[in-house]
Amino acid sequence: MPPTKNRWKSMSTKVYFDHMANTPPDPRVIGEINSKLGEVFGNPLNLHDYGQKTAEVIEAARQKVADLIGANSNELIFTSCGSESNNFALRGLAKANEKKGKHIITSSIEHFSVLYPLKELEKEGFKISYLPVDKFGLIDPAAVTSALTPETILVSLTHASNEIGTIEPIAEIGKAVKEKGVLFHVDAVQTAGTIPLNVADLKVDALTLSANQFYGPTGIAALYLKKGTRLLPFILGGTQEDGKRAGTHNIPGIVGMGKAAELAKQELSARNSKLIPLRDKLLKSLPEKIEDFFVTGHPIQRLPSHASGCVRFIEGESMSMFLNMEGIAVSTGSACVSKALKASHVLLAIGVNPEDVHGSLVFSLGNDNTDEEVDYLLEKLPPIVKRLREMSPLKKGS
Amino acid sequence: MPPTKNRWKSMSTKVYFDHMANTPPDPRVIGEINSKLGEVFGNPLNLHDYGQKTAEVIEAARQKVADLIGANSNELIFTSCGSESNNFALRGLAKANEKKGKHIITSSIEHFSVLYPLKELEKEGFKISYLPVDKFGLIDPAAVTSALTPETILVSLTHASNEIGTIEPIAEIGKAVKEKGVLFHVDAVQTAGTIPLNVADLKVDALTLSANQFYGPTGIAALYLKKGTRLLPFILGGTQEDGKRAGTHNIPGIVGMGKAAELAKQELSARNSKLIPLRDKLLKSLPEKIEDFFVTGHPIQRLPSHASGCVRFIEGESMSMFLNMEGIAVSTGSACVSKALKASHVLLAIGVNPEDVHGSLVFSLGNDNTDEEVDYLLEKLPPIVKRLREMSPLKKGS
Repeated sequence: MPPTKNRWKSMSTKVYFDHMANTPPDPRVIGEINSKLGEVFGNPLNLHDYGQKTAEVIEAARQKVADLIGANSNELIFTSCGSESNNFALRGLAKANEKKGKHIITSSIEHFSVLYPLKELEKEGFKISYLPVDKFGLIDPAAVTSALTPETILVSLTHASNEIGTIEPIAEIGKAVKEKGVLFHVDAVQTAGTIPLNVADLKVDALTLSANQFYGPTGIAALYLKKGTRLLPFILGGTQEDGKRAGTHNIPGIVGMGKAAELAKQELSARNSKLIPLRDKLLKSLPEKIEDFFVTGHPIQRLPSHASGCVRFIEGESMSMFLNMEGIAVSTGSACVSKALKASHVLLAIGVNPEDVHGSLVFSLGNDNTDEEVDYLLEKLPPIVKRLREMSPLKKGS
Repeated sequence: MPPTKNRWKSMSTKVYFDHMANTPPDPRVIGEINSKLGEVFGNPLNLHDYGQKTAEVIEAARQKVADLIGANSNELIFTSCGSESNNFALRGLAKANEKKGKHIITSSIEHFSVLYPLKELEKEGFKISYLPVDKFGLIDPAAVTSALTPETILVSLTHASNEIGTIEPIAEIGKAVKEKGVLFHVDAVQTAGTIPLNVADLKVDALTLSANQFYGPTGIAALYLKKGTRLLPFILGGTQEDGKRAGTHNIPGIVGMGKAAELAKQELSARNSKLIPLRDKLLKSLPEKIEDFFVTGHPIQRLPSHASGCVRFIEGESMSMFLNMEGIAVSTGSACVSKALKASHVLLAIGVNPEDVHGSLVFSLGNDNTDEEVDYLLEKLPPIVKRLREMSPLKKGS
């Protein structure tokens, strides 16, 4: 029997190691949403008390989100998800600045919500440079500098990939990019609210963050846009969000994101002090206990919650389903591609052999996870791997 | 003192007549969101129990939303707001079909989340026909037929404008449009969940609906897309929503929209039996009690919750602020333009004199409103109008 916390009464699986895909909302976030859900519903664009109360609630939440990343509250635009923020930033910045040039720099390990909008821009005449990464997934700041041309208008890079957890040297890259006067967007979905992050230190003009990565609800995210930066709106219509993003505000979502940001800012250091030893135990023990297992991503410079690797000769999907039967939830990579069943472009980019890519597993830890749960995983996974290898004995030798 | 229901304890204003801008979430919707918020958080793209539980919850909600409008559940795409659905439909349908032609038909009374994306398409070479309406705001089906050309690929019309409440003859128009094999999109933000609506009867290929108009939460909406209809995705990235709309699902929003749709379907007729007499009392009494007041929109063929009109020689904003001081929340028009302070294009389109447009008021009723509250408004508004006229005596004569 897996260790049970009885927090999620309705679930038969009790050990949740898939926080990269989604974090459970903090009970205090749920409490905050509840305190407002029935009382705050006026449209903030209207002048009556109902509308003005909502406007106050939204602006208080916006301030908390801004405080989390060292921004001013008027630099935050609420959106519906990290994917929207990435689409919005790339399209909005590229189209607003295309007269200056049509060259954009990105990396080969970006999320699809960055890569696909860039492919669309490519069809419209933009030229995109995809920088390689090293075997740990690190982007070389010197490579970014070398790739900059007089036509470059935008650099867009991930702060940390959800598949390998490696934290990129964004501050160093930002310095070089800004020296050339080029716009810098960072996809910080995995880092905002999970590691200390300050937009001024990172030298970014735009930054994507999402509440569901730091114990807020799903359905709400934001785009930081440095004051004075031009971008075209993505959803057109009403005058919400300073005319930059039309649509009635997601009031419960915004309230929840504000509370989650406040808690993350207060508790970040304590949370990570607890997570890092659990992560390091996984990174050390998995290769010891499982034959033909190798860690993916950087050994140290990685997200506090993130351990990942590949088990050779076995499908990650099979392992995750057997683990699920033992009461453990893990992911085989990015949630956004699990149904696509494509070989991960991120793992290929760090040099994993194509035949090993499908044995990928991501263990992403959260505030509720315990050392006991990590031990339980380390006890259960090796026999599952052994059993799966016995079931398809030809694979290893073939 | 205004009649108090003590439902919204924190508000000093007790009479809420601004349901077009936003409806308060039904307590049963809040209950449903609460029952899921802490328990359902797995990413539905993942195969473990947490993910599959979320997938079940989402699909159950999707079925309820589909049932509300007579659709199949696989024809519903969840979005973040009605504005997103409108942007998505117009851009997605136009760009997916531009090889067939570049002509689009719309009306002069559409929401800005329809008009602005069309303006963008105009810049990209599309030709847009803006059909006029009559003095009640009605679009003439024969005018739609006459405007159709071999180049026409799309007709996009509102089902009912939030400013004047007139319900358009969509079924009749739909029949004519489909006979020509042209795509038909309807912005049903104000009608889905508020009047009986069936996508097969209306002959639509795409339809926009939003939970915040029928006592669901804000931040969640949907686009109905008839099976087999091609449209390009709007937010690019993950494989969510059958690859049509990337981004982690808004779980609490979807749960709330599902419950709100279920309740709306069950209670629509009872709700409207209560609303229509209140509406009709307002439409009859306001012109009787207020000098130089005229009703806008259609006298009968209008939303059950909607009464609107213009008070000549006075600013709607002043009246709404004085009403607010008496504890009554009303709107001066579309919430989305209230900060824009532009003369309403909808009122101009029905032939209201430009100088009268600014005296517009919209009284939009909800399930909790009472006859007593309507009487309270009818008692308070006339002296406010009288007082405002005395404060600016020159206006009338000038």
